[in-house]
Amino acid sequence: MSKKTKSFRPKARRPKGFEDRFGALASAENALIAAAADVYASHGFEPLSTSALEYADCLGKFLPDDDRPNEGVFAFTDDDDQWMALRYDLTAPLARFVAENYDPLPKPLRRFAVGPVWRNEKPGPGRFREFIQIDADTIGAPGAAADAEMIMLAADVMDAAGLARSEYVIRVNNRKLLDAILGNIGVPDTDEGALQRLRTLRAIDKLDRLGPEAVARLLGDGRKDASGDFTKGAGLSAQGITTVLAYTEAGADDLDATLSALEPLMGVSEKGAEGLDELRAIAALLQACGYDDGRAIIDPSIVRGLGYYTGPVFEADLRIETVNEKGQPTRFGSAGGGGRYDDLIARFRGQPVPATGFSFGVSRFAAALHSLGRLGTTEIGPVVILALEADQMARYFAMATALRAANIRAEVYMGGSGMKAQMKYADKRNAPAVVIVGEDERLAGQVTVKNLVLGQQMSGDIKDNKEWREGRPAQTTGPKESLIEMVEQALN
Amino acid sequence: MSKKTKSFRPKARRPKGFEDRFGALASAENALIAAAADVYASHGFEPLSTSALEYADCLGKFLPDDDRPNEGVFAFTDDDDQWMALRYDLTAPLARFVAENYDPLPKPLRRFAVGPVWRNEKPGPGRFREFIQIDADTIGAPGAAADAEMIMLAADVMDAAGLARSEYVIRVNNRKLLDAILGNIGVPDTDEGALQRLRTLRAIDKLDRLGPEAVARLLGDGRKDASGDFTKGAGLSAQGITTVLAYTEAGADDLDATLSALEPLMGVSEKGAEGLDELRAIAALLQACGYDDGRAIIDPSIVRGLGYYTGPVFEADLRIETVNEKGQPTRFGSAGGGGRYDDLIARFRGQPVPATGFSFGVSRFAAALHSLGRLGTTEIGPVVILALEADQMARYFAMATALRAANIRAEVYMGGSGMKAQMKYADKRNAPAVVIVGEDERLAGQVTVKNLVLGQQMSGDIKDNKEWREGRPAQTTGPKESLIEMVEQALN
Repeated sequence: MSKKTKSFRPKARRPKGFEDRFGALASAENALIAAAADVYASHGFEPLSTSALEYADCLGKFLPDDDRPNEGVFAFTDDDDQWMALRYDLTAPLARFVAENYDPLPKPLRRFAVGPVWRNEKPGPGRFREFIQIDADTIGAPGAAADAEMIMLAADVMDAAGLARSEYVIRVNNRKLLDAILGNIGVPDTDEGALQRLRTLRAIDKLDRLGPEAVARLLGDGRKDASGDFTKGAGLSAQGITTVLAYTEAGADDLDATLSALEPLMGVSEKGAEGLDELRAIAALLQACGYDDGRAIIDPSIVRGLGYYTGPVFEADLRIETVNEKGQPTRFGSAGGGGRYDDLIARFRGQPVPATGFSFGVSRFAAALHSLGRLGTTEIGPVVILALEADQMARYFAMATALRAANIRAEVYMGGSGMKAQMKYADKRNAPAVVIVGEDERLAGQVTVKNLVLGQQMSGDIKDNKEWREGRPAQTTGPKESLIEMVEQALN
Repeated sequence: MSKKTKSFRPKARRPKGFEDRFGALASAENALIAAAADVYASHGFEPLSTSALEYADCLGKFLPDDDRPNEGVFAFTDDDDQWMALRYDLTAPLARFVAENYDPLPKPLRRFAVGPVWRNEKPGPGRFREFIQIDADTIGAPGAAADAEMIMLAADVMDAAGLARSEYVIRVNNRKLLDAILGNIGVPDTDEGALQRLRTLRAIDKLDRLGPEAVARLLGDGRKDASGDFTKGAGLSAQGITTVLAYTEAGADDLDATLSALEPLMGVSEKGAEGLDELRAIAALLQACGYDDGRAIIDPSIVRGLGYYTGPVFEADLRIETVNEKGQPTRFGSAGGGGRYDDLIARFRGQPVPATGFSFGVSRFAAALHSLGRLGTTEIGPVVILALEADQMARYFAMATALRAANIRAEVYMGGSGMKAQMKYADKRNAPAVVIVGEDERLAGQVTVKNLVLGQQMSGDIKDNKEWREGRPAQTTGPKESLIEMVEQALN
């Protein structure tokens, strides 16, 4: 290999748009996943793991940007010339799994899944090409109860993530209402109408980020953004734009008030009546179970980006400011979302299979919670046992084993450096204490335990370097049999 | 979408060589991951998550089959024409991460990682193109203590997986010994010699599967297998073959006995002396920590397939028969392995960085444990609350919430079917009990709890259908306030 090294030295570089998560941030992500998985398992959901790769035709094209053909996914041909793609979410693979194994599966099927998904997008700040999702879905449940359960589960996950109830809200809407509005303002039920509908969905989806004025332009002739790029509009009339915007603003904190405000906007549309009935049934369950305390509201401005939703849609929003990758306070927005997608499995089976689900964007959510000090930031490193005599490693190993047996994370220093570097290492690892057994201690049958947390506090108070060294603050020496006791004392 | 459905209906199919894991099997996998992660965290290892995709030149070619150029990985070009590939293990991405972030990282760096890896191989029975690995590595630790720790950690993970100590063994060897043997029998230190060395490694790696006779052919002129395919041999002399095979058979259960048997085989080779010294240091630590009780042995037939190992190599083997995908008893073989790879980071940095690690093949290992009834097979489903009156869903939800608050997994039946189908669903979910509140019970303020486990037992004893129906065995009705008490009774 040394020859190869000379002839070619690759530059170590993370692929653009991808992330590494190390230490406390990775722990935060794992903690969020474990908390959410617990919530789903306690509600009777079973785990499913499917592969990262699927045949491209099985995944279908339901991405927010599915109007750009062949974009949005990482795809290549397998050796039998079939197109394969990395999954862009966990729902399309679930649809494939259900269609392929339909008969033996329990119905309804309640499953949760965790794993990375990939989007072949232009990387940008906070916009990653790989992120972890955790999803729960109920397949084969036609009624509003299954949707209501998804909403309540989403709230339970927010609780489990350590958020106070005032800090988040689950917003609920129904795509059928917008269909009704568009029918009422004369958007035809044709291919051209479908494009108008899609552009309207996308425009509304940007309300949060761009505000109503920009969205009005996107609903009309189109909009040129700051960079000069022009986005074609939905081509609605001025009256149509007013109606759509009025609809998106009809939400209130009270479920019944919002339903009352929406009713007159639906006119005589059957689809509108259907959508309202579904929302009423959901609202009744949310009220009966006490989730109408601000945790769940109806918000007509929520449409969700994915193309496959057919009815109720949901979004989980943080109501607190978080910190972005530059350390600036920022509105976090959506931690996840979902909805009902009764046609996704029909793609394979030819007949509709009712389905509803919720998906959390774990990576971004965990990073935000972590930046707020909510998850994993107070993580304490292991106790480090210094390795001061090379021929005494077995002794150090035995001490580490004894500490772990007492449920204390512990490790022996494994490098080849001297004491000073070892102390620096312990600091870098955020070790609460180090165990020191040099030749003197060993011959005297003693151990020294240094409390690094206390030591750091005290070093602020002591100015004189000599006094510091001689006083050996936060450091205790005792018989080796008292090791665990001494370490436990240092940890408390 | 209904139009799309008519024009094109894709066939739902799992990509060949990939797996779906659902329910108890997925739970077994998750349980094994959690147990191993706990072991690593308690030893002071920190979690790292890197992306599934890496630039192909950063991954390098170190697969067992790296003599087939452009094979072994799933690769494609990114939109800036750089080759990207799905990682084939978790070690190559770690090397990239360390090289890219070298200065700020604590050294030694102790990290563990869990995630899927991909191999673009011809799928076969038990041979998958995606599987989950869990790895622990120590970077920047040159000494044998770091290797010994990896071996002990591997044993601890086997313990945590629920195996008895007689049921597994960690086999240890050192690549330097084989280098010495090959030097002694005259394999030159040239490019041609490198190929002979590689072919010798591969041949020895097949000892376990093919036996010594076939391997002797692979060490000599070559071998034609049952299918008629010819594998070119390493071209060793008859004497050389005898020497290499004698070397691979020099292992014994006792560490010191093996070391003594190996010593004369090394001749005057400096590399051999170096390798033996390293093994002696490892053995001393294993003995001092008590892992020489059969959990860890030195076995010269272990070489490991990956190209980047430079010194000690390890393998964790199950010593019990498991069941293959056809339900047949089978020798399971290796659950994981690892070793020292001091040159892998040097690829980027130009100077060696000592590194050692261990990797478990989680998917295959978990499936074997699961098939043996060790992990997840006794999983009990949730308590199912039947949904008998459509307008009483809120009542059912409240009961499920109450049960969960008492730490009982519970769900409301979400489908649209009648009582018979609901009972069938509960059976399929392996529910221990169902809660029944029909109109009668509701008006009387009562609930009925049916113990499905007891019911199944009793149904074997009762022959008369009428007696069965009238007796309502394993079923209790009581006041709705006693729900939790009644369910707890049914679960015990």
